[in-house]
Amino acid sequence: MQRSKLLEPFFNPHSIAVVGASPDQGKLGNFLICNILENGFSGKVYPVNPRCDQILGLLCYRSVSEIPEATDLSVILLPAKSVADSLREHARKGIHNVIVLSAGFKEAGPVGEALELQLATISQELGIRVLGPNCLGIFDNVSKLDTFFVPRELIQRPYLGEISLASQSGSFVGHLMDVSAFEGIGVARVITYGNRMDIDETDALYYFADDEKTKVVGLYIEGVKDGQEFLRAASYCSSKKPVVVLKTGRSELISTAVSSHTGALAGSYSAYKAAFQKVSFIEVNSEVEFVDMCKVVSMLPKAHGRRVLILGHAGGLGLTLADLCLNEGLEIPSASKNLIRALRTRVLPFASLVNPIDLTASGTDDQAAFVLEEAFVKRNFADIAIYIGVWGLPQASDKIAQILKTASIKSGKPILVASLEGKKCIEKQGVFHSIGIPVFLSLERAAKAARETFSLEK
Amino acid sequence: MQRSKLLEPFFNPHSIAVVGASPDQGKLGNFLICNILENGFSGKVYPVNPRCDQILGLLCYRSVSEIPEATDLSVILLPAKSVADSLREHARKGIHNVIVLSAGFKEAGPVGEALELQLATISQELGIRVLGPNCLGIFDNVSKLDTFFVPRELIQRPYLGEISLASQSGSFVGHLMDVSAFEGIGVARVITYGNRMDIDETDALYYFADDEKTKVVGLYIEGVKDGQEFLRAASYCSSKKPVVVLKTGRSELISTAVSSHTGALAGSYSAYKAAFQKVSFIEVNSEVEFVDMCKVVSMLPKAHGRRVLILGHAGGLGLTLADLCLNEGLEIPSASKNLIRALRTRVLPFASLVNPIDLTASGTDDQAAFVLEEAFVKRNFADIAIYIGVWGLPQASDKIAQILKTASIKSGKPILVASLEGKKCIEKQGVFHSIGIPVFLSLERAAKAARETFSLEK
Repeated sequence: MQRSKLLEPFFNPHSIAVVGASPDQGKLGNFLICNILENGFSGKVYPVNPRCDQILGLLCYRSVSEIPEATDLSVILLPAKSVADSLREHARKGIHNVIVLSAGFKEAGPVGEALELQLATISQELGIRVLGPNCLGIFDNVSKLDTFFVPRELIQRPYLGEISLASQSGSFVGHLMDVSAFEGIGVARVITYGNRMDIDETDALYYFADDEKTKVVGLYIEGVKDGQEFLRAASYCSSKKPVVVLKTGRSELISTAVSSHTGALAGSYSAYKAAFQKVSFIEVNSEVEFVDMCKVVSMLPKAHGRRVLILGHAGGLGLTLADLCLNEGLEIPSASKNLIRALRTRVLPFASLVNPIDLTASGTDDQAAFVLEEAFVKRNFADIAIYIGVWGLPQASDKIAQILKTASIKSGKPILVASLEGKKCIEKQGVFHSIGIPVFLSLERAAKAARETFSLEK
Repeated sequence: MQRSKLLEPFFNPHSIAVVGASPDQGKLGNFLICNILENGFSGKVYPVNPRCDQILGLLCYRSVSEIPEATDLSVILLPAKSVADSLREHARKGIHNVIVLSAGFKEAGPVGEALELQLATISQELGIRVLGPNCLGIFDNVSKLDTFFVPRELIQRPYLGEISLASQSGSFVGHLMDVSAFEGIGVARVITYGNRMDIDETDALYYFADDEKTKVVGLYIEGVKDGQEFLRAASYCSSKKPVVVLKTGRSELISTAVSSHTGALAGSYSAYKAAFQKVSFIEVNSEVEFVDMCKVVSMLPKAHGRRVLILGHAGGLGLTLADLCLNEGLEIPSASKNLIRALRTRVLPFASLVNPIDLTASGTDDQAAFVLEEAFVKRNFADIAIYIGVWGLPQASDKIAQILKTASIKSGKPILVASLEGKKCIEKQGVFHSIGIPVFLSLERAAKAARETFSLEK
């Protein structure tokens, strides 16, 4: 089978067993089954629990052997010591793809390590592919499968989009999903492999590489198992679509902590850094840079120079943003007298036109459209435009989103929105994201994103 | 009169005239009068508008001369060319403190410059103190005065707190208020002076220095008028309370833009930098750093070393935070075998205890309390503690806020919360802020704040 097809039953099963599903509110096994059902998964779901007959209106099976079919996938949330026996039962039933959500394995000291070794041996003998243990499994916005056992009111699920995420850490990617939902960033598929006893980042990279629903891949890694194998998968994926990567446990100092987290060896960071460069991965340092970089690569064309036009209705914010852009190595060209004269015909007499351009609190969207058309599209005054999208002004309307989009398409150059983290600013993000204009929720984040549109080109 | 008392009628007037108040929804003069009334200002309010009899149920006066008293303060929102005449009328009425919100003066080219010169001459002759023009005036959470003509649903007002803000730029400070409201950061008083024809940052610094409601001062400046005078006021204020400052227009390249914004000269940034150091101002680079630094200086004790304990229920986030702390020059000490043994008695067997400490998704608040007491309070394992406050876990509760507070008080050391920008995380901020434990909405912001608790000490 093609490497990229191996994970198909995990992302897109027609039927699943949920072993350890619980009818008791507040239990993890209850969150798990609730989330699977509430997310709209359309395949057949078989809860398994020896102590009950029915869960959430579904017939509950006492054991895997009683399920009426060999499901494409099974999700296991049992105490660590019971998982091995369960795998044997799965094999007898003919189920060969399993997600083990349970913790208490390699990450939990000598006893857990022994349990995981046993699990690895059994699954190999029985021909069972295992995702996990110690993971959150799959969240898929295409098939609607959601094996995360975290309530949706605690971690919101993002809407369907073009970014797919692969992560050792469930907590990291879970919270990244929450951030994505908050920012209105669309996500296609998410896979977490925890201790990655069997399935790991290489499998995820092959799958996402060939997955037509995935346009950008985001990868969180603490360490890899097999460097050569990783490089092959990474090159393959990177040749097809951009891959954003966050590597943690960089310092030797905390590699012990990494090891105690998922039992992985963090390895030397400089080796990773060199590897990422070799396969053209885009490296980031934090969860915020991760999300922002995904926005940059999925929504913005590349900039062909470092000159930035700053446009808005808020003078002080524009000046602060200009300083931050200069800090990032970008340029803030001054408008020529000619350009200022041309702009002056259509803006308010007290608008500042040098750059940053401040249309003032009384400026209108039409004036912003005129400035973009004249300075950015026609005269090529800058390579990148940043619109300061704050919402304290009566005159600014949602029309501006389409104005920015039009100017970006006509010029073929990146236009992005610098905003702040206020209530209205957050509400308004969706207006821009829905037509592919990215919003960055601080001036500094916008300046960094603008730099990336240029520096990624190199 | 003492310098610090000059602004008393501006922040705390017993009666105000609102010249240019409008009954028409959507007009700036309507937002202005609505905000003044809705904010709960308890003094007498006299709307002035020659074209109407009543505004929002208040008797409206045709001219300032018709108002039944000489108000402590008048707020003017008239076209620029009408302001001079209005000042004369104010003088005749005996009103000597005026906020000119109107734009179209020095910032708007030669004509506006002439108008402002005229205004300056007249006000000096007539003995009128002027705040503005081209500003948003005052927002005061003590007296409840709010002259900002921006709707409250567009720019939220923060609750009462101990930080006071002074700014040339209305847009900057307006949005900073919005961010503060969003983050649950309390604000005492805000003053914007725009073109600062008369009242400027030195007056604000003297006022805030002696104001008992103000514990921390935040200052946004594009440039100062008189360097020596500024240094005197700055030293005076800084000797009494911490002052956080953001200076924009740093590069010579954009000083023209600064000048076109409020007619100020930006001056050489290196001179400002030296001046700030001399008067022990705390300098920041962006609106986010501004808010975060205000949180650090108002809520956290100083750290006496750079060793950080990271504690949470989310392994991947802890490791990422550890890398970011190391990037900031902080240290992540590893727990000794002795300490690990002591902690192991009360946490889950698969918790990671090296540091970052990961209690896992099944860990409890009581376990976090035990770790803090044992490692941070009793054994002085670290100088700073960061709790990863994310809310994807069923076991974590609001109790943790008091646990952190207790450990911080008992140890005398800073404890802060690293969170993310998801919906639940934002909702939960208030639980911490209300008892003085600051929350930072990204791992990088938390790492930087932790560094500041240490480096500010120097």
